[in-house]
Amino acid sequence: MTPTQEQLLTLAQLGTATIHEAQGQVGALDSGLRPIDPTVRLCGSALTVECRPDDNLALHYALTKARPGDVLVVDAKGFTEAGPWGDLLTLAAQKLGIAGLVIDGAVRDANAIIDMGFPTFSRGLSIKGTNKCQPGRVNVPIVIGGVSVRPGDIIIGDRDGLVVVERSRVQEVIELSRAREDKEAAIREGIEAGTSTVDLLGLRDTLQRFNMQ
Amino acid sequence: MTPTQEQLLTLAQLGTATIHEAQGQVGALDSGLRPIDPTVRLCGSALTVECRPDDNLALHYALTKARPGDVLVVDAKGFTEAGPWGDLLTLAAQKLGIAGLVIDGAVRDANAIIDMGFPTFSRGLSIKGTNKCQPGRVNVPIVIGGVSVRPGDIIIGDRDGLVVVERSRVQEVIELSRAREDKEAAIREGIEAGTSTVDLLGLRDTLQRFNMQ
Amino acid sequence: MTPTQEQLLTLAQLGTATIHEAQGQVGALDSGLRPIDPTVRLCGSALTVECRPDDNLALHYALTKARPGDVLVVDAKGFTEAGPWGDLLTLAAQKLGIAGLVIDGAVRDANAIIDMGFPTFSRGLSIKGTNKCQPGRVNVPIVIGGVSVRPGDIIIGDRDGLVVVERSRVQEVIELSRAREDKEAAIREGIEAGTSTVDLLGLRDTLQRFNMQ
Amino acid sequence: MTPTQEQLLTLAQLGTATIHEAQGQVGALDSGLRPIDPTVRLCGSALTVECRPDDNLALHYALTKARPGDVLVVDAKGFTEAGPWGDLLTLAAQKLGIAGLVIDGAVRDANAIIDMGFPTFSRGLSIKGTNKCQPGRVNVPIVIGGVSVRPGDIIIGDRDGLVVVERSRVQEVIELSRAREDKEAAIREGIEAGTSTVDLLGLRDTLQRFNMQ
Amino acid sequence: MTPTQEQLLTLAQLGTATIHEAQGQVGALDSGLRPIDPTVRLCGSALTVECRPDDNLALHYALTKARPGDVLVVDAKGFTEAGPWGDLLTLAAQKLGIAGLVIDGAVRDANAIIDMGFPTFSRGLSIKGTNKCQPGRVNVPIVIGGVSVRPGDIIIGDRDGLVVVERSRVQEVIELSRAREDKEAAIREGIEAGTSTVDLLGLRDTLQRFNMQ
Amino acid sequence: MTPTQEQLLTLAQLGTATIHEAQGQVGALDSGLRPIDPTVRLCGSALTVECRPDDNLALHYALTKARPGDVLVVDAKGFTEAGPWGDLLTLAAQKLGIAGLVIDGAVRDANAIIDMGFPTFSRGLSIKGTNKCQPGRVNVPIVIGGVSVRPGDIIIGDRDGLVVVERSRVQEVIELSRAREDKEAAIREGIEAGTSTVDLLGLRDTLQRFNMQ
Repeated sequence: MTPTQEQLLTLAQLGTATIHEAQGQVGALDSGLRPIDPTVRLCGSALTVECRPDDNLALHYALTKARPGDVLVVDAKGFTEAGPWGDLLTLAAQKLGIAGLVIDGAVRDANAIIDMGFPTFSRGLSIKGTNKCQPGRVNVPIVIGGVSVRPGDIIIGDRDGLVVVERSRVQEVIELSRAREDKEAAIREGIEAGTSTVDLLGLRDTLQRFNMQ
Repeated sequence: MTPTQEQLLTLAQLGTATIHEAQGQVGALDSGLRPIDPTVRLCGSALTVECRPDDNLALHYALTKARPGDVLVVDAKGFTEAGPWGDLLTLAAQKLGIAGLVIDGAVRDANAIIDMGFPTFSRGLSIKGTNKCQPGRVNVPIVIGGVSVRPGDIIIGDRDGLVVVERSRVQEVIELSRAREDKEAAIREGIEAGTSTVDLLGLRDTLQRFNMQ
Repeated sequence: MTPTQEQLLTLAQLGTATIHEAQGQVGALDSGLRPIDPTVRLCGSALTVECRPDDNLALHYALTKARPGDVLVVDAKGFTEAGPWGDLLTLAAQKLGIAGLVIDGAVRDANAIIDMGFPTFSRGLSIKGTNKCQPGRVNVPIVIGGVSVRPGDIIIGDRDGLVVVERSRVQEVIELSRAREDKEAAIREGIEAGTSTVDLLGLRDTLQRFNMQ
Repeated sequence: MTPTQEQLLTLAQLGTATIHEAQGQVGALDSGLRPIDPTVRLCGSALTVECRPDDNLALHYALTKARPGDVLVVDAKGFTEAGPWGDLLTLAAQKLGIAGLVIDGAVRDANAIIDMGFPTFSRGLSIKGTNKCQPGRVNVPIVIGGVSVRPGDIIIGDRDGLVVVERSRVQEVIELSRAREDKEAAIREGIEAGTSTVDLLGLRDTLQRFNMQ
Repeated sequence: MTPTQEQLLTLAQLGTATIHEAQGQVGALDSGLRPIDPTVRLCGSALTVECRPDDNLALHYALTKARPGDVLVVDAKGFTEAGPWGDLLTLAAQKLGIAGLVIDGAVRDANAIIDMGFPTFSRGLSIKGTNKCQPGRVNVPIVIGGVSVRPGDIIIGDRDGLVVVERSRVQEVIELSRAREDKEAAIREGIEAGTSTVDLLGLRDTLQRFNMQ
Repeated sequence: MTPTQEQLLTLAQLGTATIHEAQGQVGALDSGLRPIDPTVRLCGSALTVECRPDDNLALHYALTKARPGDVLVVDAKGFTEAGPWGDLLTLAAQKLGIAGLVIDGAVRDANAIIDMGFPTFSRGLSIKGTNKCQPGRVNVPIVIGGVSVRPGDIIIGDRDGLVVVERSRVQEVIELSRAREDKEAAIREGIEAGTSTVDLLGLRDTLQRFNMQ
């Protein structure tokens, strides 16, 4: 049930908004989690981490469990006044083939991380380093950005934000997304041809019901 | 009383801060409404829209009322966890000659919108799509970002933010802004010549009154 | 005890996160204070200013006290709905050789300030100009972003944020930072050689204590 | 067109939520403006004030313009780190027969104000006093809490929040509110009799359309 | 596996902080969800609801599915500028024996709800009523306040906040909580006898490791 | 230089707003730090504590250093999603004669703490307990709520907020506050006699300068 490399590439290309819509408007993380470099795209299997705010012991621990293609998805309790992730952890992660980082917290060394080309989504930046003396958990179900994420779920990110696809739904969601893209292509053609979106989407009746004419 | 194309170009070049100051420090929207691409400039007549959060029926409806050069100015109730505007609506808007979008809410498909060169100001980005089943109103007075906007008022935006000029004051505000620019040019010369801003602005007396010497 | 130009250059190159860590995890301003241009670097002696929100009289006054290389560090009470600093003050500051601005408040004319290459850190942007009729204080100890800053302390900024070094500790902090860089270089080599950060940082015991294995 | 004392009493009794709904879901201030004593009720004609953050000169000025029954409605720019209103101004206001205060800002001396029984709605409390050296305006249209308020409009407040009724609509809104109360009384009876709100409000069709059964 | 009335009473008495700690520091909702009356206590089985912001159709629908003792646990998308729940829905809920409401959104008619004695936890108050034309879902797993809640899970609330206990763990959590209470009673005795908490909790070694002596 | 019991009582009676104003509008903590019981008053010598978010080891340690009359003033990094202080620590603190708590963070067991009558000021409430494995510091200068506090400074709190008085200024501030109270009494008499605050405070000239007449 592990997604193929081709499936992951396809998801990355489809884009977060399309996937979210296609899978029934579920799985979108809250809008406060943003890429530190808005031009990057992220896609991979979630290696979930729960850590304390202001402590990165669990992140070092998580690296020992990571497999190539994993994305670290870290519940750091929303604390943005410490940066438990920086350039050294980025280097270590890249050596292990980790595909990126999503952290409900902050990171530091943003310039270096952007230069290294490591897709990173966080709630902020902070130069404040952390301790390494609090426990944490790896590969357990977590809630991040208002969404439940289980180990192995697929997480996709771009400038707009992040969406999670349940591991078992990958192929289904790809197909639903493509169907949506086809539908959107038809609408796009209609728009180019000068038809209004009200007609293309069949909204006349609803507008009439509300006396919007 | 509709402003000419030349007047709109002039306002766009004057910049938001100058216009705000020149017209008596009124008309600036709150600083949370920002361009998704900080390099763009926006200027046009407001087509006002009031819609419910998490629903874009009124936006589709508004397009049927738009005229070339209009800017959609949308009170979406400040809700940033849904993106009622995306690439399809952008395409439709551009086909109609709409000059840009200001929304007190979020948008999705930011990459596409930036590539399409459509000036867009919002309170955030969100990949979450919306429904199309709530009523709304178009071309009514609204309050957005702490400012009253009436249909046909001029709205100008750049990296710094957004300012509204009442439709009937366009020529007056252009003249006030130019007078301000002239005054600033003189101050600039004074600065280049080595005079302090305290002297250029005549602040010695005030400083003395507060014992700041 | 005034730092040399060479010391300042060295601090700018070391970067904020390294300095914060090296001097004992103190001196970092809160993460809401950010560069308006994320690519700039800032370093200089603090010329502290305390002003009222929505009034820039004290900023004009401060310029009369500035020396080349100073950084204006301004407690504007965290108010982000007015921009007491704009392009004219930037021009005046550059004429005086001022090295940059840190303001707990907002600035306007961001495009111009970026073009002029003046390193500026603020809590936001606002086009709303201010009055010039409230008193303020210059070269007094202030608290900004949760950190005490005394006149003459060194402030360093980059994309990640801002850190303050006490004037009397400059050389010590440079040495501590270099020691930290050497340590990090060793860790970097270890990572490149394939050793885990858990081993490089000696975290096995702590992990064992928490049953993380 | 000035509302009678009886009309004001009626509005106070109707409550904010009923009035807002009855007049077409318009006129509600944002939810951050709250009573410092949740048990009070407020109702009166708006004496509008626009002042600078951190300065209360305009409040002293406004008192010279006040008539018995007026409510001071103050746009203090949302700044909550200063309390331009305290016990002395409360005493002066009560001597003048002023009915209460709504301020988009903070107040101080909350204990005293509550003891004095002066209905006060603010965005926060702050012990920080202000200066008296910035200009302001009285009896001009303002925007507060996202709502346009004109001098003489009626403002009503209770634990839930605040709503503004246009001066010219007072009698109409009272009648609409009473009609709504009658309708609610009928629904209340239906609920007491054991009928579901789905049936009482005729929601079966809508539920069916969405497959909610 | 449905908890008995006695078990629910016991949980209510144990209090939220004790339960959260006893079950392993999981299940606490974020601190922004608060009781509108801080003196109430809430305990019951979750009837989960997912609705759109600014629409309460799904709440009316949920009442048709409710059983005595249920607590409505509503994901209203965190939107606090509309109150989809008021006094009529409270009356209807009480007639059905519903034990209380938790809503990630706002409520209106707070005075009436408090008088009626209906335990209500929300993120705010808003007088703004809603429409009844958007779909929703009932008795599905939801995420609220950062916690996954499944239908039938037990939710407990008091002044401090809210905690969720998985339905299958009720008896276990009661026992763990009692064990914790016993332990706390022993510590309390130790404190009364004059022993320091450092000794009672065995913290000397940790303090020594950090040179805190 | 330790303040006498009488001096502390006097400061508590003077109230925070008066003290802040009297000592030159300095020393007020930000308005987000509030009493969990708005009716309490707090006054005592600061025992400063710096701890990590989500860890209370340093609080247990601080108790071993406390003297009767001390107020724990704790920089917990503004993190409000954990309550490092609860009923057991309150009991221990009361046994030691500690006068109260100010924490830039959250507390739990608010009901119990209020019943025990222990003056407590925090940024929020959270039921989430913490670990005891991170270091901290006691009796060092800290910054809290935007104010520098040194061990032994006096901290006073009431419903309006908190203010710090430097240890060496206690008698001076008491005298300045009394002078201010005398002045306010005179103004109060003037108000009672029907004089406007504009005249009582000598604001006519300023109003005239701004054309406010």
